[in-house]
Amino acid sequence: MEKIKPTLSKGTRDFLPEEVAKRNFLFEAITKVFSKYGFQQIETPAIERLETLTGKYGDEGDKLLFKILNSGDFLKNVPSEILAEVKSSAALKHIAEKGLRYDLTVPLARYVVQHQDKLAFPFRRFHIGQVWRADRPQKGRYQEFYQCDADIIGSAGLLNEVELILIFTEAFAKLGLHEVELKISNRKILAALAEKMNCAAQFSVLAVAIDKLDKVEKEKVFETLLQEGFSQQQIDVLATYLNLNGTNESILQQLKQFFIGISIGELGIEELETVINTALSVAPNAPIKIDLSLARGLDYYTGFIIEAKNNSGSLRSSIGSGGRYDNLTEIFGGKNLTGVGISFGVERIFDIMEELNLFPENLKSGTQVLFCHFDEVTQNFAFKELQKLRSGNVSAEIYPTVSKLGKQLDYANKKQIQFAVIVGSEEVETQMLTVKNLKEGTQEKVSANVLLQYFKNKYN
Amino acid sequence: MEKIKPTLSKGTRDFLPEEVAKRNFLFEAITKVFSKYGFQQIETPAIERLETLTGKYGDEGDKLLFKILNSGDFLKNVPSEILAEVKSSAALKHIAEKGLRYDLTVPLARYVVQHQDKLAFPFRRFHIGQVWRADRPQKGRYQEFYQCDADIIGSAGLLNEVELILIFTEAFAKLGLHEVELKISNRKILAALAEKMNCAAQFSVLAVAIDKLDKVEKEKVFETLLQEGFSQQQIDVLATYLNLNGTNESILQQLKQFFIGISIGELGIEELETVINTALSVAPNAPIKIDLSLARGLDYYTGFIIEAKNNSGSLRSSIGSGGRYDNLTEIFGGKNLTGVGISFGVERIFDIMEELNLFPENLKSGTQVLFCHFDEVTQNFAFKELQKLRSGNVSAEIYPTVSKLGKQLDYANKKQIQFAVIVGSEEVETQMLTVKNLKEGTQEKVSANVLLQYFKNKYN
Repeated sequence: MEKIKPTLSKGTRDFLPEEVAKRNFLFEAITKVFSKYGFQQIETPAIERLETLTGKYGDEGDKLLFKILNSGDFLKNVPSEILAEVKSSAALKHIAEKGLRYDLTVPLARYVVQHQDKLAFPFRRFHIGQVWRADRPQKGRYQEFYQCDADIIGSAGLLNEVELILIFTEAFAKLGLHEVELKISNRKILAALAEKMNCAAQFSVLAVAIDKLDKVEKEKVFETLLQEGFSQQQIDVLATYLNLNGTNESILQQLKQFFIGISIGELGIEELETVINTALSVAPNAPIKIDLSLARGLDYYTGFIIEAKNNSGSLRSSIGSGGRYDNLTEIFGGKNLTGVGISFGVERIFDIMEELNLFPENLKSGTQVLFCHFDEVTQNFAFKELQKLRSGNVSAEIYPTVSKLGKQLDYANKKQIQFAVIVGSEEVETQMLTVKNLKEGTQEKVSANVLLQYFKNKYN
Repeated sequence: MEKIKPTLSKGTRDFLPEEVAKRNFLFEAITKVFSKYGFQQIETPAIERLETLTGKYGDEGDKLLFKILNSGDFLKNVPSEILAEVKSSAALKHIAEKGLRYDLTVPLARYVVQHQDKLAFPFRRFHIGQVWRADRPQKGRYQEFYQCDADIIGSAGLLNEVELILIFTEAFAKLGLHEVELKISNRKILAALAEKMNCAAQFSVLAVAIDKLDKVEKEKVFETLLQEGFSQQQIDVLATYLNLNGTNESILQQLKQFFIGISIGELGIEELETVINTALSVAPNAPIKIDLSLARGLDYYTGFIIEAKNNSGSLRSSIGSGGRYDNLTEIFGGKNLTGVGISFGVERIFDIMEELNLFPENLKSGTQVLFCHFDEVTQNFAFKELQKLRSGNVSAEIYPTVSKLGKQLDYANKKQIQFAVIVGSEEVETQMLTVKNLKEGTQEKVSANVLLQYFKNKYN
């Protein structure tokens, strides 16, 4: 076989043991919160039918879908005129039926409709899994990355929104992210704004424009809207709306004035008020703040919307988001299945925790003890002692060949194993083993009889 | 949007919460054993370059690789004569650069070479992940499924083989699979057999034929070999070899006689003997048995080979396998990186555990307590009580809308939640809550003050 340079496909990553340990720590912390709140884990396949995926993420999204080539003679079914004219877009449906999932939400919609007879509604599920997007890779953006979502399907009650706020609050605190702001709003209020601006037909354009306000200056956004045909009068209404500020309570009062008589607005304000009051009634410190410039560009949100923003370290960005969507399952024939959900930006959270040193120290190596030896006799002796430790659930290894002690200790250091038990002929004879604490540079003699207890005490 | 029937891509699966809980139980049990033995978890991407994957699994394997269509105008770079002649195989390299991993072993080889400066050798890693194969789907065989591998790279010591035997032994016992046989042999003994049969050049053919002996009758296998040009004399040698039997000790003695003077055979027998004796010295009950019909068809094995067979229930089949391979990393430029590894057949193990009822009962729902209520006042009261339970790490939920009690209890039953706390106006007034044990059909009154302690006692 020809030699191949070991290379990753662009936009993908390998994970070293230390990185996997940290990621597991992060996922387990979030999973524990989900479980405590009654969410159950599900899984859907990486591969979905393209029919399921296409058309759900806009034209741009369709382009970013990874498509899987049909097996076998894949060109066979492509009409010859398409091949003759080299029309890739027309050829696509003839050569690819499957793709890789783009998010966890569309598969959830399919899943809920497909398995509705077997699920308990309101269905509270979480899903941690990879998704794939053929985006141009750049720092912090990959073609294969994790998403971590919790959703409640089939219940319109606003307590669901509150539950998700509590989950964000508790999970971020648990991870050590104490400077998080939970920005919330309601798309019904935006719909009312569009009504007040007389531009209900352009609701999406308006929502996308408002969504840009956290990155682009207000004036620029207004300019763009003017270019897109909005009038100065409309912009003035928008500007007044965006100027409403103060405490949550004060903003709610101003909103009520502003949208008086616009029923969808009154409903949205009432929902927002209920969510805030209920959340604060059980979690007075929940960092929720109404943000009227929050819009969540995605078309499918219909009510409550939320975005979690990290305010510590240098990576001050969105680390989670979500909202209520009423019509997501409709495309698959699901009826009356309103949903509300949140997504943790786990890749970003990982980077922030790394920067802020929030991962525990002891994740680095699973192994607590390495047995070192000098020849076959001491190796055999050490191997038996090793098994005793393992039978007591101490994570331990033996260096697997007769090698120089330096090499064995080197291995322990590289792997950040804290203890080395050194078994020489003297140790075999006296049954007193030398235990080196490699972290502290100390050593002592420990009787073979009590070795297990010795390490159990160290680790409990 | 057009309505779409919710359907899975063929050969893929959704997992219901109960199934995910069971699978997590299985993975965690194995992970704990791996960790105790000093193995560290790594991860490689699902998407690899086709260059990395192609040619490693034989022609048949290449056909089963899922290939990912290049993004954008994928036909653009296909030479026009290839399109004109509709030659899929020739077009392939022009329209697909990436594929989905077919196993975890080839990615491991790439990984080890690519990251060797950052790894501690001997490198003990495990990896649990999905792999994809465009196989024809059938009962128990999927196009997307989990593999679960542990390997040690960079150490020729036979203690490594013993460690893997101990892991198999401990993990299967832990899972409740008590009727497992670990069949072992050594490919050097097979090489010696080929030498004795004067067919060293046809070693692969011989190995593949022997490998079939657990499914096909001996006579049929002999017949096939005769048809492939083996002589009767050669078959006689093979037959004598396959007739060697008895205890491990007795087989080793017979092998020594049989291969006397054939040095590679003597070495293989010595290795096998050392592995057996060392394993039994620390784990006298390890169910290891020499099986001379074990060959492990895969070309890359060079020494020790192992296969775990389940002997309980109706699914009596291989549930794990492995062996030593000396040259796996060479294709990526890795030198002196001999490896030895095992793979748990986790999909099969799952099915067997399901059949034998080996999964714990209480996996079914994470939620321990559901709060039920009757109106806004009782709901608010219940919501606060709920948060108290959660703050004490009791997994609990509240029904999120005001609904009939029957509907709320129905939800609890469907989700197999054991306790319902019922909060009516009387309960709010007296602060004595009604706790229903839905499993046992009993109920009692518990003071709100001690509710957390009540459930903590139930679950600790």
